[in-house]
Amino acid sequence: MSVINHQFKLATRPVGAVKRSDFNYIQEAVRDPAEGEVVVKILYISLDPAMRGWMNENKNSYMPPVGIDEVMRAIAVGRVVASKNPNFAVGDHVNGLLGVQEYAYSNGQGLSKVDPRLAPLPVFLGTLGMPGLTAYFGLLEIGQPKAGETVVVSGAAGAVGAVVGQIAKIKGCRVVGIAGGADKCRYLVEELGFDVAIDYKSEDVTAALHKHCPKGIDVYFDNVGGDILDAVLTKLARDARIVICGAISQYNNTTPVKGPANYLALIVARASMKGVMVGDYYPRAMEALSAMGGWLASGKLKTREDVVEGLETFPDTFQKLFTGENNGKLVLKVAEA
Amino acid sequence: MSVINHQFKLATRPVGAVKRSDFNYIQEAVRDPAEGEVVVKILYISLDPAMRGWMNENKNSYMPPVGIDEVMRAIAVGRVVASKNPNFAVGDHVNGLLGVQEYAYSNGQGLSKVDPRLAPLPVFLGTLGMPGLTAYFGLLEIGQPKAGETVVVSGAAGAVGAVVGQIAKIKGCRVVGIAGGADKCRYLVEELGFDVAIDYKSEDVTAALHKHCPKGIDVYFDNVGGDILDAVLTKLARDARIVICGAISQYNNTTPVKGPANYLALIVARASMKGVMVGDYYPRAMEALSAMGGWLASGKLKTREDVVEGLETFPDTFQKLFTGENNGKLVLKVAEA
Repeated sequence: MSVINHQFKLATRPVGAVKRSDFNYIQEAVRDPAEGEVVVKILYISLDPAMRGWMNENKNSYMPPVGIDEVMRAIAVGRVVASKNPNFAVGDHVNGLLGVQEYAYSNGQGLSKVDPRLAPLPVFLGTLGMPGLTAYFGLLEIGQPKAGETVVVSGAAGAVGAVVGQIAKIKGCRVVGIAGGADKCRYLVEELGFDVAIDYKSEDVTAALHKHCPKGIDVYFDNVGGDILDAVLTKLARDARIVICGAISQYNNTTPVKGPANYLALIVARASMKGVMVGDYYPRAMEALSAMGGWLASGKLKTREDVVEGLETFPDTFQKLFTGENNGKLVLKVAEA
Repeated sequence: MSVINHQFKLATRPVGAVKRSDFNYIQEAVRDPAEGEVVVKILYISLDPAMRGWMNENKNSYMPPVGIDEVMRAIAVGRVVASKNPNFAVGDHVNGLLGVQEYAYSNGQGLSKVDPRLAPLPVFLGTLGMPGLTAYFGLLEIGQPKAGETVVVSGAAGAVGAVVGQIAKIKGCRVVGIAGGADKCRYLVEELGFDVAIDYKSEDVTAALHKHCPKGIDVYFDNVGGDILDAVLTKLARDARIVICGAISQYNNTTPVKGPANYLALIVARASMKGVMVGDYYPRAMEALSAMGGWLASGKLKTREDVVEGLETFPDTFQKLFTGENNGKLVLKVAEA
């Protein structure tokens, strides 16, 4: 093969928002697979808030940080173009931690096949991928919503939040989404069937929660942290469950994370706050994917991907997650097929 | 009756630490009980950190605030000196929310009899009272410690913390207490059998926790909040349980509560943080009291009360809870018998 692989390698640990100069954009020739390896041509790369954390020097995280001069870590889907691994044939579509690049080598570990006849490939990075599994297990296993309860989700128009809210509706809950901007809020109510959407950019979130959750908040699925988490804590129902999934409002901080000042509300409400780590549920992925596949097929679950073309746009496109410019699951399109 | 009742009534909502001028010290004649009432002569008054919260104008709490010009709310034990209630006879010893005063009227609601032959009366305000029940149910029901696990408790020499640590030892756990000062730390290890005590006034708590909890912290029982909670969050074991009981470091704040900046560790550790409200467990009080009574009798559970004489010292004595000057359960002695 004499094909060129373009790659984004981490040049330095970003301070605050990611800049193009935090990466080196490299090109190198694609080599043949070694024994046991496959070469994957990457088609779509998932851009996830968690990637921001992987860029930091943090010894206490669930994964080692991306090393300086290493290809930036990312989930992607692609097509096997060369294989010396008996489990994967040329032409197979696969999903895994393939990195921000055009071609990836893999020994097959952590690589799973996806069937492009079931859904467009970007959906396997969103609703039928890591964000969807996070939503499914985080909400159902940790949030434990019961029909008639009030479920609030932040980052509600994002890849995880939109699935959380829709599953909560399927389970018979009253669902309040918090998102930024009138367009996203309209989308949540008119397209996804949320009961209420609160626009944190133009509304007083605390006042809106008190208005729209008169019986209190039974389940809160938190993707954002910061002031919105504190607002929710003022309106917990008795025995509320808070699912801590992420804190995108805090990931670009150059100062310490803002902890929830109102956390003592956990005492008054007898409430719990628990973290969710999607990897724990990968052994049960089929259970979630079959349920969500069914809901997708029947139209009960809708999915939206924001596909941006061009590997070379990576640092700027990634930043859309933090400004909230993306509409739906943010995906980088690298190649047609 | 022509007896005088001295009372502390809330004069104004304290800002920061409680001052004597936040109260009016009143005297009035004790009247006869109305139909259905008893008159209780108060012998010992419990001084608890929660009382600081009751002085604030907080609509979201589990109890209404003490009103301006109302007798300051407090748990106390006393002796019935007059009764027009068939459930209580003159001479009965009783425990309830009787207030910071010498005599209280009660219709019997929330009043329970105690047997002074079982333990000295101040013990019914500590280990065999609300603090002991908080420790018992908070640790066992929410913390769910298993033999061999590492349990950390803050405010460890206090009325709740000392019981938490001792029950954790009885359950076969490794127990690390955090307290202020060498004397308290020595008491925890030498008298109460804690494995380790960390003196937060002279040690780096984070470093000490990392040293003394090499396998991580499985259960943390938090009475203090603030920086110590943040330190614990850096060393959680997988699936750790944090019991939020209180945050004495924050109760006198004139600025907002310091939320736990490291709360995203809940994700990495798949940990939970849950509040405990002792009142929920009052229907099961007998279960706890019989267990703790047995441990007291057999010497497995030790109890220490810091008894200060004189109702009139109330505002200054109360402040000892926040400076950490008390040694054991802080109790105000009002009368001999």
